[in-house]
Amino acid sequence: MIDQQLQSAREHEVTDTVVASFGGAGDARFKEVMTSLVRHLHGFAREVRLTTAEWDAAIAFLTRAGHITDDHRQEFILLSDVLGLSMLTVAINAPADGDASESTVFGPFFVEDAPEVQVGADISGGLTGLPCWIHGTVTATDGTPIPDARIEVWAADDAGFYDVQYDDGKLRGRAHFASAADGRWDFWTVQPAAYPIPHDGPVGDLLTAAGRGPMRPAHVHFMVSAPGYRTLITHIFVKGDEWLDDDAVFGVKDSLIVPFVEHGAGTAPDGRQLDGSWSEAEFSIVLAPAGGQS
Amino acid sequence: MIDQQLQSAREHEVTDTVVASFGGAGDARFKEVMTSLVRHLHGFAREVRLTTAEWDAAIAFLTRAGHITDDHRQEFILLSDVLGLSMLTVAINAPADGDASESTVFGPFFVEDAPEVQVGADISGGLTGLPCWIHGTVTATDGTPIPDARIEVWAADDAGFYDVQYDDGKLRGRAHFASAADGRWDFWTVQPAAYPIPHDGPVGDLLTAAGRGPMRPAHVHFMVSAPGYRTLITHIFVKGDEWLDDDAVFGVKDSLIVPFVEHGAGTAPDGRQLDGSWSEAEFSIVLAPAGGQS
Repeated sequence: MIDQQLQSAREHEVTDTVVASFGGAGDARFKEVMTSLVRHLHGFAREVRLTTAEWDAAIAFLTRAGHITDDHRQEFILLSDVLGLSMLTVAINAPADGDASESTVFGPFFVEDAPEVQVGADISGGLTGLPCWIHGTVTATDGTPIPDARIEVWAADDAGFYDVQYDDGKLRGRAHFASAADGRWDFWTVQPAAYPIPHDGPVGDLLTAAGRGPMRPAHVHFMVSAPGYRTLITHIFVKGDEWLDDDAVFGVKDSLIVPFVEHGAGTAPDGRQLDGSWSEAEFSIVLAPAGGQS
Repeated sequence: MIDQQLQSAREHEVTDTVVASFGGAGDARFKEVMTSLVRHLHGFAREVRLTTAEWDAAIAFLTRAGHITDDHRQEFILLSDVLGLSMLTVAINAPADGDASESTVFGPFFVEDAPEVQVGADISGGLTGLPCWIHGTVTATDGTPIPDARIEVWAADDAGFYDVQYDDGKLRGRAHFASAADGRWDFWTVQPAAYPIPHDGPVGDLLTAAGRGPMRPAHVHFMVSAPGYRTLITHIFVKGDEWLDDDAVFGVKDSLIVPFVEHGAGTAPDGRQLDGSWSEAEFSIVLAPAGGQS
């Protein structure tokens, strides 16, 4: 006869013993984080009555993830992404503050040394796709324009690939520039396409088992910083994209979906002459004050 | 101003969205496990207000663990061990059942093809250490002797090393034999010493940060199986070992600590003549009936 009371006592004794083992940690924050991690990890195992075979499968999954990870592939970040831990960490560290623009995942395609350009520049550098004019403002939550904010942008092309995924070593479709005295900014690039996250490894198998797909809806990355303000890491998403409700990494926020309006050949508002179609998107960037941690 | 109510809603929305994404999983158990995992993982991140730097550190830790893991080193099992998840999984899958012997961790040093020997054999095979006679019984929870149970034993030597940690490819200090008609069994080996788990990787760093040591108290492994009974995976620990209260992997149970009684030169109960000191330990193995999952 299984003795349920004794069994429950034994299981909780394991958890209490492990928690106590972190009691001598020198760093109070490390102790706090590990104590919570152990309690939640054990709570999970008790709740699902984790079997030995499932534990074996978890060890094998992590081992595969470790072995596929190298300088160009980060399966643990993908795992965090598809479990929503990345988006939750973003949410925790960029808390809601008035009308401040919402944050989303940073992603693996940022590079440190993107070229500096003037407002209004065409940064497509030969990437294929519909010419796309993106413009907007940077303001504080009280509406005050923020001049000279550093705006980093990067995006995929119409095949869903970033410049760094091509083998020629050329930077394209990425740049940084400064907002003008009135907080305004604009640039030209190409309209990006949706693309899959790498899904030929264990995370891909996890998605398959979940009945989920690997796609990310089309988006343009922004990182915006200015002294005295919280750095904003976010995207804008192309309204109407078929994957908006199925982003593999849960990055979509309603406030970040904007129309990419298509226009015919002619003269754009900045005076550029276009022989064919082009599109236009607007993004009003609102920065939270620095130091506003929840 | 941080909007705490909106912030909380946004954080829980992330979790709900991720949980919902597993709604289409084909396997009901997979869905159950992943749903619980996501809720507990997110609960942890919200509770400790996980910072971006801590998330970065976690990714780096898992990456190191993956890269140090190979055919001979399994850092993810070590991680599970030092977080007590291994012992909790053992507890869940070998629930308390009458006087059935308690289980503990399997460990990485079992090998499939240990030699079969007769009851009473000396299995030390040249391992160094104090000669040690271990004897006992195998019974059911109602006291009925179990004949012909398969008893696998393995242990380290007096330097704390298993045979497989030496380079000569010889199996020593391990064997399997069958209990006699009255459930009795005995064998000779050497008394093992305490030893550290591998601690030159990220798990060792974690132990150091926790103010914990890597030692395991001296023990002899048993795996005992018989038709109709739940297979028992356990150790006996040497009473008085200095690490009994600090086992790095939380494997010690009071019921598994037994005296290793030292004797002077002379004749052992089985008739063996000893020129010098030897020790004796007794273990009454009690098997739970099969199928008694909690």
